[in-house]
Amino acid sequence: MTLQHEQHYGIEDFHDLYEKPRRGKVYLIGAGPGDPELMTIKGMRCLREADVVLYDRLISPLLLEEARPGAALMYVGKGPKNHSLPQEDINTLLITYAHQGCTVARLKGGDPYIFGRGGEEAEALAAAGVPFEVVPGVSSAVAVPAYAGIPVTHRDHASSVTFVTGHEGCHNKEQAVNWEALAALGGTLVVLMGVKALPNFTGRLIAGGLASDTPAAIIQEGTTENQRI
Amino acid sequence: MTLQHEQHYGIEDFHDLYEKPRRGKVYLIGAGPGDPELMTIKGMRCLREADVVLYDRLISPLLLEEARPGAALMYVGKGPKNHSLPQEDINTLLITYAHQGCTVARLKGGDPYIFGRGGEEAEALAAAGVPFEVVPGVSSAVAVPAYAGIPVTHRDHASSVTFVTGHEGCHNKEQAVNWEALAALGGTLVVLMGVKALPNFTGRLIAGGLASDTPAAIIQEGTTENQRI
Repeated sequence: MTLQHEQHYGIEDFHDLYEKPRRGKVYLIGAGPGDPELMTIKGMRCLREADVVLYDRLISPLLLEEARPGAALMYVGKGPKNHSLPQEDINTLLITYAHQGCTVARLKGGDPYIFGRGGEEAEALAAAGVPFEVVPGVSSAVAVPAYAGIPVTHRDHASSVTFVTGHEGCHNKEQAVNWEALAALGGTLVVLMGVKALPNFTGRLIAGGLASDTPAAIIQEGTTENQRI
Repeated sequence: MTLQHEQHYGIEDFHDLYEKPRRGKVYLIGAGPGDPELMTIKGMRCLREADVVLYDRLISPLLLEEARPGAALMYVGKGPKNHSLPQEDINTLLITYAHQGCTVARLKGGDPYIFGRGGEEAEALAAAGVPFEVVPGVSSAVAVPAYAGIPVTHRDHASSVTFVTGHEGCHNKEQAVNWEALAALGGTLVVLMGVKALPNFTGRLIAGGLASDTPAAIIQEGTTENQRI
């Protein structure tokens, strides 16, 4: 393992050496919860190797500075209101660049597989025959409470932790969140992107039997300098 | 942010310069799930700064090589059978070294607050007045399924994910895992250290209403070269 910044070459550097194009590859990288230092060493290595970087809304500018000179940086983030680029178009971009022989870094906030739609991107890449690798990241669901002083599990207090999203993001109605079962489960509950849905799910949790004086915290811009609790 | 290995000094180097001792500090660091490259950049920085490193059983030897020359490396891991050092003694060691002015890196597998007993260590440090910082890590509960090709959430299939431990590790009987509520919840269920308890909790899940043909995976030594699925 090395943390040294090795010299990298763009695809154009190899065109003189090899006739046939390189085979592209996509890294689905979890960039962590906000603090750029919570990126993994592997994620940083893949980012530095990339010819093209597709990044989401909450990616720190400090991370983007680590891309190699000449790498193409593309913002494909989704805001709370404007979906600047549909998911299908992001999938197509990933596949197109990989087919062109590029190494592609797909930078996602937190972990790609915790409400990051990384599963959909992985499926699209697999269907298109594009080699890809998932680089797990520190999930905001764990790190944001940790920075706020809250362990999500504890031997004396919580023997399970459940992550759900406040955006009812599931297309499959049978898989919608069962808030009443969550109330019965106990343990710690972490709701991501939950501010807007707060009155709805707190009501359903209490209706499901959760005590209305259950301790709770609301954390905004966690792990960043602007963190509010 | 830098990944360069800066020069570090031990406390003995400062005794000539300052009369009063340095104030110690403890970093509770999540070292990730097995692959040493899944350590965070912040975790690596704190490890390299440390005078003393207390590490658990599943920490990669490659990570320990990153400690500065002269740092004291102490194994305090718990095996599945032998508890080599009681938790209370680990807490005491952390406090003692910090009181001596040392920077202490406490390296834990995965994330310190996901069944890592990091909450107990944080409480002990806070009670003793020792400055400490939690450095979240990539949890094996997310990364091990990811390396095995399993997204733990998916827009079409799973709108929640719950982590529990197969070791009934909770001292508080009221907080024991409610497997029947888990069966009703749906979503993805990740059981850490679950092999021994497998017959017990699968029976309770099915009794709670979970279909006996629910897809399941068992993963051993995930994210390492010895991974088995």
